[in-house]
Parts: sequence; structure tokens; C-alpha cells
Amino acid sequence: MGTMGTVTHRKVVPPMKTTRIVLASRPTGRPEPANFRTETVELDPPKPGQALLQTLYLSLDPYMRGRMSDAPSYAPPVEIDETMCGATVSRVLESTDPALRPGDIVLGYGGWQTHSVEYVSYLRALDPAAAPITTALGVLGMPGFTAYSGLLTIGRPQPGETVVVAAATGPVGATVGQIAKIQGARAVGIAGGPEKVALLRDRFGFDAALDHRAPDFADQLAAATPDGIDVYFENVGGPVFDAVLPRLNKFARIPVCGLVANYNDTELPPGPDRLSLLMSNVLRKSLTLRGFIQTEFLDQAGDFYPAATQWLADGRLKYLEDVVDGLDNAVPAFQGLLTGKNLGKLVIKVAE
Amino acid sequence: MGTMGTVTHRKVVPPMKTTRIVLASRPTGRPEPANFRTETVELDPPKPGQALLQTLYLSLDPYMRGRMSDAPSYAPPVEIDETMCGATVSRVLESTDPALRPGDIVLGYGGWQTHSVEYVSYLRALDPAAAPITTALGVLGMPGFTAYSGLLTIGRPQPGETVVVAAATGPVGATVGQIAKIQGARAVGIAGGPEKVALLRDRFGFDAALDHRAPDFADQLAAATPDGIDVYFENVGGPVFDAVLPRLNKFARIPVCGLVANYNDTELPPGPDRLSLLMSNVLRKSLTLRGFIQTEFLDQAGDFYPAATQWLADGRLKYLEDVVDGLDNAVPAFQGLLTGKNLGKLVIKVAE
Repeated sequence: MGTMGTVTHRKVVPPMKTTRIVLASRPTGRPEPANFRTETVELDPPKPGQALLQTLYLSLDPYMRGRMSDAPSYAPPVEIDETMCGATVSRVLESTDPALRPGDIVLGYGGWQTHSVEYVSYLRALDPAAAPITTALGVLGMPGFTAYSGLLTIGRPQPGETVVVAAATGPVGATVGQIAKIQGARAVGIAGGPEKVALLRDRFGFDAALDHRAPDFADQLAAATPDGIDVYFENVGGPVFDAVLPRLNKFARIPVCGLVANYNDTELPPGPDRLSLLMSNVLRKSLTLRGFIQTEFLDQAGDFYPAATQWLADGRLKYLEDVVDGLDNAVPAFQGLLTGKNLGKLVIKVAE
Repeated sequence: MGTMGTVTHRKVVPPMKTTRIVLASRPTGRPEPANFRTETVELDPPKPGQALLQTLYLSLDPYMRGRMSDAPSYAPPVEIDETMCGATVSRVLESTDPALRPGDIVLGYGGWQTHSVEYVSYLRALDPAAAPITTALGVLGMPGFTAYSGLLTIGRPQPGETVVVAAATGPVGATVGQIAKIQGARAVGIAGGPEKVALLRDRFGFDAALDHRAPDFADQLAAATPDGIDVYFENVGGPVFDAVLPRLNKFARIPVCGLVANYNDTELPPGPDRLSLLMSNVLRKSLTLRGFIQTEFLDQAGDFYPAATQWLADGRLKYLEDVVDGLDNAVPAFQGLLTGKNLGKLVIKVAE
């Protein structure tokens, strides 16, 4: 124990402070500013195995709405008075572990704050020369891997099949559509508003692009899927799913990774009760509905990173980021995320 | 062509008649006697490749309710004035194909009638010495294979896991429970009424047996599944599924092969709309919901028959038949099937 010593890269620094956004109360419906509190506190110095980090970018993602609630879910909730959780790209200021040096850029899970102390073993060093560091929060990070693993493992698109995805300018949806194309499938993207719809076709190369706000959206979807739908990658729920359901082909696969349209619901919608309608579709069409969280497929991450990095380099995989300046803007930016106001992967730029 | 000749086992017989039950009109809700018509007509003599059969036993199964409707489904509907469809065990009266001789017993698809003319290539000869011939309609037939293929391919029960099935004295449910036990899982059976519940425990060896009519059924189900539910084999739908949903474990599998509780519904039930509730369970628990028809898995039939026949011989697989005498009783017997009045596999004995 300790006989080998450890090299500690440490500067003499005054007590380090962090400015953080904590959960002050659990939202009912839409999260409001009153549900959060911004405070500045002193950070404990890093213990052995830890590093002190300065947050450069904070990822904002729909799943965070679930963590604000204490309803049973796949992950424990953020506690009241606890810092809101979130993936971060940070600069190392101080490290007790020789694996990291001050100045290194890392992917971590620092949350909604300017500085954090994290265990080095949970950090992943990023190579700024390989790809822009923000991509570790989007197309090369959790959202991209969600798209990759859910589409390939559950959706299994075959050449010539039709894949439909909503929120298709978002980091999951855009990646689903482009990987579907790489697999030889036909990709139909759905988004809200003409600006996003134009991006689907022009930037991301979807074969068809639809606006779910159009009054005749269901008819447009039928026209855009003349051979029906073989894979519906479900990351929004709500009215889009209602229009998709009658278009699903026999043996269609529906990976379910998000239901953002419902996240602010405080009670079930009024009837009729369509649970039996969904089940009868599952039966009549031999559908597969499969919920998943990307962590289930982490054994595929070693395939994903090189493949996605190569596709990025080849120009076959494009991405779009919506970078909002300043941690102060995290709450309104997150509110906008839940109603689709962002254009691409939403990232808060916390520091240069 | 024809130079080899074919041996025709043919007796000189007067024109053969069949008494048959045809669909006279499509039921709205519960099928009523007025939806059917019994008539006696002359049969055309068998053409080359066909055989003339006398029906001994007619299988009645819940899927037939779907064939009475012209709503889109996995199989075309029975046409108006057409003989109601159904699997049959029959005796060969006359065959144009040397593979079958008069007196042979075959599994066919003759429908609700006393005699039929069928293509020999669609018939399967039965060995009355190997198992009672009625088992070809139940435990060793389509219902048994539905249980086997859906449970093992989609449900994939692991030793120690908990498998729940409803309509558990029926030919699918009883077989699901017993194969679950053979796989080392814990089997919880659900049925309607004390007589059936007693059978689940005493005859079929379920680890727990519950009456879905009990006012505290949901509480009983919770008590009977202390470790939650890993596989729910869905063949009924309705209130049983409502009680199962909150008990499902993470990564639970739900093969969906029938929804008999809903088959007579003429409109969706009143709200609230629980479609989003089901989807959020799929997401939060990483559930797999998978509809299927056993025909999808016919490549496993070669494994099923010897395995199930051996389990029958070993006494590890038991079955129960509810034999109703006379084709005249097919309509009321079918009405009873949709409300669970039968006790075991429902079979009409059409002739000795």
C-alpha cells in the first residue's frame, strides 16, 4: 500500500468554488425556474483517485425530466438540493491520478455546474484532434450510441425496408436516419416546423421529411410510406405514434428509447382507452415493441466509436449542435428542449 | 405425365353429402345463432390429389372469432355463406392418393361440417397408437405448439424466473405453465372460478393458482409473484393484463398470442387512454412485447412433436379436453369458449 507512491499533478490553489444549479423542488408538469436554485459553494479538494474539473460543455437531454421526478424509473431521481445531473465535457485542473494531467479534456458526468470533482476511473479522455469535443455529448456520445445500438440490435433494418423516426433533427433521430441509410434502408424523418423539415432532406439526406404539425400529417405519412413501415424508432410518443400505428407492417420492430411528448404529463389523457387497440395491433401484425436504455448494449460501444468516427470522417454521418451560451440559460434551454425549440443536439457552453 | 398411373382407392358410392355450418352474417359483438346457418349439400367427388373425409372431431378455438370479422387481420375472413373454418380429425373414406387409404385417421382443416374433400398434401396422418387422436387438435397440435414456440422463442424463461399465464386450464395456457416448469421456472396460473383454479394446482402443477374473478385479484397476484414477473404469456388481454403490468420486472418478455377478452368488443373502452401508460412501462422497464402466430415458427415443429410426445408419455405434460357431442352444439359451445365456459380444450365430437 503506497510503497509505489503516486504522482500527483497539483498546483497550490485557493479553495475552489463551483456555481451549480440544484433541484429545489419536483416539477409538476413543465419544469419551471422555481423548481431550481443556483448557488455557489466550495468544493472539497480531490481525494486520491479523483480529479478537479472545469466544465466546458454541459449536455441537456430529455431523460433529465425523468430524473426530476421521483416516480419509479430506470434510474434513481436527483434528490432535492442535489446538483442536476448531466454529462459534461471538462478540462482537468488538477488530478491525483497520473492518467490525467491538467489541461486534458475529458468526458464526465459533472452535472449542471461550473466545476466538479470526479473519480478519474469514470472519466474518458477525449482527443480534440480526432473530433470536436462537443461530439462526445452527441453524435459520438450517448445519443449517437442510443441510435446505433437500438436501431441495429432491435430495429434490424434490412436493405429496402422503411425506417421512420421522429425528432429527426435531434441527435438520436438524425443518427437513426443516417445509419438506416448506411444499412440500405429507406429513411423517413419527422420533425416540427418547416426549418427542421428542410434540414432533414438537405443536411441529413432523409428520403422523405414530414412536419408533424401539418393538419394532414397522417395522410402525408401514408403517402411517404407506400410500402408501410418496417421499423419505427420511438423517441417521442404522442400523436406521431398514433399516425405510425396503422402504417406498421407485419413483423415491424419498434425500439422505444424515449417518449418526450409525454414527459410533462401529470395525468393520463382522456379516453377512449387505446391500450387494447395497441395490443391488438401487436397481435395482428406480429409486432415487436422493445424498450431499451443504451447502457444495456455497452458491450457494443467498442464497435460503435470507430464506426461512427469513420462515418463522420467520410461525411456519411452528419450532426447538428445547438450551443447555448452560459449555465444561466440551462433552465430555459431545457424547457425548450421538451417542446422541440432546439435545433440539433442541445449543449450549454459553460466556459471557454 | 400419367405414365406411372396412380392407385386410386375408391369405392362406388352414392353422391356424398355434407351437413355444414356456414357463416350467414358477420357478428357484431357476441356471435349469435342467427349469424350461422346449417345446411346439407352435395360434395363434389375428390379430384386427383384429394381425399373424401368424414369428420370425427372439430376443434373450436378463439381465433375463429377473428375469422368471422372482416377487419384486417393476419388471415382472410371466412366469407359469407362459406363453411366456418376449423381444424378437424377425420377418417378417410376415399383417396385418390396412394399415401392414404380408407380408414386412415388424419388431421386436416375441414371446418364445421360432417364431411369434407381436402388435398392429401395438406393432411397429416395420425397414429392412434401413439396418442389419442384428439390431442392433434390440442396439446400435440396448434395450441400446444403455440405454447411451445411462443414461450421458448419469445418468453425464454430462465430457471428460477416467474412465468405467468392466464386462461391456464386452456390448451395453450396449461401447456405454457407445464413447459415453464420443465424449463425450471416458477409457473403462476390464472383462471376463472374455483373449479379451474383447483385444476391448475392439482392437475397441472402450477406453483400458484389464482382466480381472476376474485375482488382482490391484483393483490393476490402481487402476493403470488414476490419476485415480480419475468414472462407474461398473453392470451387473454383485459383486466388480467392490467394487474400484470405493474408486476413486470425489468427486461420482462410478453409473447402475445391472443386477446380473447377483447374479441367481442365493438368499440374501444372508455378512458382514460392508457396507451401512453403501456408505452412508458415498455420504456422504463425495457420490456419486450411481441405478437406472434405459431405459423411463424413452423421450422420448430420438428423439435416440438417428439419433445411433447415424450413429455406426455413421461407424465410431465398433462392435458384436459372438453368434448361436446354433436355438430349441432358447435355454436353454443363456441359462445361459451369466448367467455371461458369450457374446461380444457374444446372439441366437438362430430361422429364416432
